[in-house]
Amino acid sequence: MPVILAPDRAPSVQELLADIAEAKTLVDRIEPGLVYAQDTKVLGIGPIGSANEHEISFIVSSKFKDQLQQASACAVIMTADMRAELAKTPDYVQVICGQPYLLYALVARWFDQRRQPPWIPGVHPSAVVHQTASIDKDAVIGPNVVVGAGTVIDQGVMVQANCCIGANCRIGSGSVLYPNVTFYDNVRIGQRGIIHAGVVLGADGFGFAPNPMLGQGAWGKISQLGGVVVGNDVEIGANTTIDRGALEDTVIGNGVKLDNQIMIGHNCHIGDHTAMAACVGIAGSTKIGARCIIGGAAMFSGHLTIADDVQISGGTAITSDIPKAGRFTGVMPAAPHKQWQRNAAVMSQLSELRKRLRELERNVGEIE
Amino acid sequence: MPVILAPDRAPSVQELLADIAEAKTLVDRIEPGLVYAQDTKVLGIGPIGSANEHEISFIVSSKFKDQLQQASACAVIMTADMRAELAKTPDYVQVICGQPYLLYALVARWFDQRRQPPWIPGVHPSAVVHQTASIDKDAVIGPNVVVGAGTVIDQGVMVQANCCIGANCRIGSGSVLYPNVTFYDNVRIGQRGIIHAGVVLGADGFGFAPNPMLGQGAWGKISQLGGVVVGNDVEIGANTTIDRGALEDTVIGNGVKLDNQIMIGHNCHIGDHTAMAACVGIAGSTKIGARCIIGGAAMFSGHLTIADDVQISGGTAITSDIPKAGRFTGVMPAAPHKQWQRNAAVMSQLSELRKRLRELERNVGEIE
Amino acid sequence: MPVILAPDRAPSVQELLADIAEAKTLVDRIEPGLVYAQDTKVLGIGPIGSANEHEISFIVSSKFKDQLQQASACAVIMTADMRAELAKTPDYVQVICGQPYLLYALVARWFDQRRQPPWIPGVHPSAVVHQTASIDKDAVIGPNVVVGAGTVIDQGVMVQANCCIGANCRIGSGSVLYPNVTFYDNVRIGQRGIIHAGVVLGADGFGFAPNPMLGQGAWGKISQLGGVVVGNDVEIGANTTIDRGALEDTVIGNGVKLDNQIMIGHNCHIGDHTAMAACVGIAGSTKIGARCIIGGAAMFSGHLTIADDVQISGGTAITSDIPKAGRFTGVMPAAPHKQWQRNAAVMSQLSELRKRLRELERNVGEIE
Repeated sequence: MPVILAPDRAPSVQELLADIAEAKTLVDRIEPGLVYAQDTKVLGIGPIGSANEHEISFIVSSKFKDQLQQASACAVIMTADMRAELAKTPDYVQVICGQPYLLYALVARWFDQRRQPPWIPGVHPSAVVHQTASIDKDAVIGPNVVVGAGTVIDQGVMVQANCCIGANCRIGSGSVLYPNVTFYDNVRIGQRGIIHAGVVLGADGFGFAPNPMLGQGAWGKISQLGGVVVGNDVEIGANTTIDRGALEDTVIGNGVKLDNQIMIGHNCHIGDHTAMAACVGIAGSTKIGARCIIGGAAMFSGHLTIADDVQISGGTAITSDIPKAGRFTGVMPAAPHKQWQRNAAVMSQLSELRKRLRELERNVGEIE
Repeated sequence: MPVILAPDRAPSVQELLADIAEAKTLVDRIEPGLVYAQDTKVLGIGPIGSANEHEISFIVSSKFKDQLQQASACAVIMTADMRAELAKTPDYVQVICGQPYLLYALVARWFDQRRQPPWIPGVHPSAVVHQTASIDKDAVIGPNVVVGAGTVIDQGVMVQANCCIGANCRIGSGSVLYPNVTFYDNVRIGQRGIIHAGVVLGADGFGFAPNPMLGQGAWGKISQLGGVVVGNDVEIGANTTIDRGALEDTVIGNGVKLDNQIMIGHNCHIGDHTAMAACVGIAGSTKIGARCIIGGAAMFSGHLTIADDVQISGGTAITSDIPKAGRFTGVMPAAPHKQWQRNAAVMSQLSELRKRLRELERNVGEIE
Repeated sequence: MPVILAPDRAPSVQELLADIAEAKTLVDRIEPGLVYAQDTKVLGIGPIGSANEHEISFIVSSKFKDQLQQASACAVIMTADMRAELAKTPDYVQVICGQPYLLYALVARWFDQRRQPPWIPGVHPSAVVHQTASIDKDAVIGPNVVVGAGTVIDQGVMVQANCCIGANCRIGSGSVLYPNVTFYDNVRIGQRGIIHAGVVLGADGFGFAPNPMLGQGAWGKISQLGGVVVGNDVEIGANTTIDRGALEDTVIGNGVKLDNQIMIGHNCHIGDHTAMAACVGIAGSTKIGARCIIGGAAMFSGHLTIADDVQISGGTAITSDIPKAGRFTGVMPAAPHKQWQRNAAVMSQLSELRKRLRELERNVGEIE
């Protein structure tokens, strides 16, 4: 487990939980174990099956009950029910809590925040910042970062190394950009955003019109004049791309969570709190509702409207509007190759097969 | 609409159209509106439903006719037929033109060209350019750009921040590279290319041969010695990758338009004016003809030959040659999850179902 | 063919083969041609159909036998059987060898290694290296590279321009990172790795839990505390992303070969010598065995276990465990669009069709 604090920086179980504001209401009680007590130092956090005596752990499902008996962690977060099922008092401290998964998330965040910050605050001398850009004094601008004219970077923002931010952009307070991110001109993101490495926001949408003056079959470019607007609390995964709008903005709502290598075309709107797993592709001008959950590698045609609270299974192609909530799927089942070959041959005859079935039904009807 | 000129830089309707050479032949006549006339200043361009009184707009389909009556734009591009259908003289200037979409494209380009250029011409002092590279004096080399030995960069090229150009590359006149682009050695692109952020041209093709000397199941690398050659007027979308050839070059024809996150394997040839939407994958050594249109997330096996003028629907997997023009599709339709489950269960029995149908046909035939 | 040595750097056929250690055992004999002999200079390597008189070539399949008669290369690698089939002594030198493909790979590697190295050894003055990082004196750190605290870079490593390496990383000896690569903190790769441009290792895994306190449908982030561990002899293609583990590490085995634009989620384990073609997506916590071969654009759900020696066809979605070796496929066959439309309509009725077939079978059974 890579986040391991040096013993002199590590808290005791008691200090750790006291330092997490929400823990006060979440934790019902803390019981000492046979070996470890509340003053035991906690250097990190690990899964129940492999956490060692310097780590706190947790259990979220009775599926892992067996591991609980043999856990080596110095403290374990669990429900009162789980505690009651334990045959005997364990070696470790027991943190009794109605929502162990939520407390785990808070403890993990606590350790995450103790990682060493990657860069010293301020603007790194190697950064190239346009004289008309405005950088808050508490922001961190890493090495080799480039910031264009008129761009505003708010308080507590961290732009990590080798990012390029275009002109007239805005980065809301508390946002983090990991290395090698590119913002074209006129990209605005809200507060507390997390933009992972290699993300490209605001590249030209794919807009062309046939232009025979340029040659047989040639395409003329449609300039893409819109921008990209991203709400608050949005996370965008590594190497994801979101194109600028043709005339108006491409819009990503508040609380949207996008995994890696997602592609969102120009003029799309993504509703608040919608989450998408990796490799999803959304063609231009499609509108996706709020609180949707989109599985990995799902694909959407352009100009669609998808309702709120829709769930799309991974690998599914959506080619028409979805007017109300529900779960939709369209995946070809995998099978041993030879079996697939036999079935695939029939797939291209399905229409004919149905015709033969109808014919038979008629014939049998007549016989009867 | 983010491209908004300051009033002192903005043209009047008349000046704008006079400044677009092609408009002379495209525009039939300009009629004043009740409120706005030809000398009204135009600060930007917007869609018919949301353009304000400082913006010019356009209408390309009678589908949006209702919006035309209520438009707030100061000028609207429309056909004579559209004009004739208007119940009364509108507030805005009417630009009458047989091809409103083409004129829109030209006006949008005009505004696009008035954006502030991101970097001052010349080689930025932070760029690292090999002494044997040749950079035209009119080229723009942005901050932190790295250019390798023997590379030639022609007139009017703009290489934006943090791009890395390898050795012995050539970038044709008027081409633009957005930030964080990587060219490996021996990559050549033609004139007027547009290469979006995060593009990688010339990474090694995926070439391996089993080499048991390195261990059971181990792979030995086949060095990839070819390059990548890209024609004139090619646009390549953000984070797209095109691999170098194994021995000869991977070749992208003139006028090819590639959207974001496309992957083109080693030794591929893409014919002139072929357009591909985002997330398309093409395995090595496949040849695609001219003027093809490939939908998003379509996938091609390796070593295929696809004819000219072929259209592939989005999400379709192509696993064999296509010898002549036509449209090809292979997408599993999406359905409500439970309905899909019922049908998917049958998909793995299709071959058996056909057998049973044949059997029935025989039996019924005998009965008759 | 881009790797062409200047004549004064080029070896003769004899010198070339003598300089490749493995050639000693691989080459059976070298026979002079009518025009070229063993002292002919070899400037490069090319395919049999297009190699010129300065290039060596090879033939691996009797399919290309016709090209052998007309080859213009100065030397050709072939089997004794191929040689025996030649009607007459050719102009070129014949290199007789039981494994022509392997010898080709070795000759290609020889020429690849003679390319000009892109950067002078040592740390480029524009690089920003944390004072606690340890860089071997033989390593090459290119322009604008950023290296974080506590990171160790071993002997013979080449980190090319504009890469960002986080804190507490380790890069094993002989590894090459092409430009614009990002390693987050706590990423370790083994020896002789090849990491292509735009790769992102160690971005946060996609971990969220519903958190109604943040709003209806809102997601709370689960901090991702694990790292990424990559074995020896691994190649990772351009713009591929591998996420860090939630609590423990994401693990890539020895000898794994990954093509471009692959996405591997948090907590995944990929077994030794497994190879994946481009655009594959693997959701979190899936374990893939050793020596698997995964076709392009295949997709895996999360939390699966795939056995050793499994082969997955390109474009196949795997949604359940595969407990033993074999080849698996699930691809919708492509067809002319109208034919597909007719068949697709039936696909959503398959379950009903089966019911009707059963009904008919019953009826016909009764009639009989």
